[in-house]
Amino acid sequence: MQLLKTIEEIRAAVAQARRQGKTIGFVPTMGALHAGHSSLIQKARSQCGCIVVSIFVNPTQFGPTEDFGHYPRTLEEDTCLCESLRVDCVFAPSAEEMYPQKNLTWVDVEQLTAGLCGASRPGHLRGVTTVCTKLFHIVLPDKAYFGQKDAQQAVVIRRMVEDLNFPMEVIVCPTVREADGLAISSRNRYLSPEQRRQAVCLYQALCRCKEWVQQGTISSRELIEQMNQIVSKAGAQAEYISIVDSRTLQSMESLTADALVALACRVGTTRLIDNMLIFLNPLRFQI
Amino acid sequence: MQLLKTIEEIRAAVAQARRQGKTIGFVPTMGALHAGHSSLIQKARSQCGCIVVSIFVNPTQFGPTEDFGHYPRTLEEDTCLCESLRVDCVFAPSAEEMYPQKNLTWVDVEQLTAGLCGASRPGHLRGVTTVCTKLFHIVLPDKAYFGQKDAQQAVVIRRMVEDLNFPMEVIVCPTVREADGLAISSRNRYLSPEQRRQAVCLYQALCRCKEWVQQGTISSRELIEQMNQIVSKAGAQAEYISIVDSRTLQSMESLTADALVALACRVGTTRLIDNMLIFLNPLRFQI
Repeated sequence: MQLLKTIEEIRAAVAQARRQGKTIGFVPTMGALHAGHSSLIQKARSQCGCIVVSIFVNPTQFGPTEDFGHYPRTLEEDTCLCESLRVDCVFAPSAEEMYPQKNLTWVDVEQLTAGLCGASRPGHLRGVTTVCTKLFHIVLPDKAYFGQKDAQQAVVIRRMVEDLNFPMEVIVCPTVREADGLAISSRNRYLSPEQRRQAVCLYQALCRCKEWVQQGTISSRELIEQMNQIVSKAGAQAEYISIVDSRTLQSMESLTADALVALACRVGTTRLIDNMLIFLNPLRFQI
Repeated sequence: MQLLKTIEEIRAAVAQARRQGKTIGFVPTMGALHAGHSSLIQKARSQCGCIVVSIFVNPTQFGPTEDFGHYPRTLEEDTCLCESLRVDCVFAPSAEEMYPQKNLTWVDVEQLTAGLCGASRPGHLRGVTTVCTKLFHIVLPDKAYFGQKDAQQAVVIRRMVEDLNFPMEVIVCPTVREADGLAISSRNRYLSPEQRRQAVCLYQALCRCKEWVQQGTISSRELIEQMNQIVSKAGAQAEYISIVDSRTLQSMESLTADALVALACRVGTTRLIDNMLIFLNPLRFQI
């Protein structure tokens, strides 16, 4: 496995793999790798000849009051994990390598970024789409892999790739969970033991939502109220709990089309997100 | 020469040229081809193995009151010219092919788009950067060719390619002029014979500006006032006459760095633009 720090180096490595007739699978990450990332890498490994993982804590997707400064940085463990998963290249550039001058160019996806995390984290998704565009242009992958845990990000990146005709495919892989159901996230390591026990409430609220839907509840308001009670009782604070059309991300008053149930909660000062897809006809759930 | 209407077809044609080891030179146009485009194509022909010309009157770069509807469309003449210049592929997609669904994703370059044509044509440059991104992703060129006549566009596209790490080079070619100095433009065909005589005033104003600078004038205000008089006397109306830093496009009070002198004028209802670069140390001009 190669650990590469410059754009020139990763471009040369990918070009060589390309000349050998290999397809390129790309997993963009901010490092602090966990089982969720492993599942993306394994999926890529099963579909592509050359696997590139980028590790870059992207400053332009953090707000001024967010956790950019103390976001976990664990490059040594991350490269060990990548090596064990038979990654070909880890691309770990510096901020100066990625942003050598003031960035003036932004990729923005309208409408899909207005609600959910887009509403509570202004500029976040614009930072994500912009850095993904840069990384896609550097790595030139055939397929790029994202987690369903960041549901809005997945919808936004997919639409960006369609709208801008990127010559590549976006693959979205299911959320990976701890034994008790907590969605695995790099930010889980911020949680104290007590907060860790509280944090399962996001998953529990989604599971109860599933039951109510199975029992016939279709009003978003009712479902959201019940979920909010579960979260509050556990001692967490809901930032949003939303039921939206799974493709347009527009709010739905009731379950009349395939839906995304998404929530963001504070457990202590840590912001956690989770979601569930509801498909109608026939009714099924992806959680 | 191949005339291709779908993204799938042009991608296949480019991929074949690529497999033959050819470099790809790309000239994006809105058709109504003239000697300015020919110079771009000839430059591309001298540098690349496979030349692609796109012909697409892009709706997203026209304002609601602008000339999208009656912009000249001359596909047959255009393809004849391309054939004579040994173009390999003309890509002439429909609006439905380029925008099969409502476009939600926009590429925006801040600061550089605030003044000049960006100020008088809101959304225009965003439409240009977005469609160029789409076309670059479709054609995947090694080099793309733009004219210095659209000076702000050239600076903006160059910056976009840098900021977003597009794996390609932007080549800007000098403005091509009629015998009397009028910059060649597809919109010149809107001019009546009398307006055509008036239209040379943009070039004359630039030439006089050059003389004043050679004689030692460095105040932007003085230079602009004099240019405005020339334009007004000819019966044209200046939309803007600006002297800006040639890299940042920020207004300059006096010639203290390499400068772009740019103007947009109405001759009748036709909007014409022209510009001149001034390099200091040693003093020289590109017009």
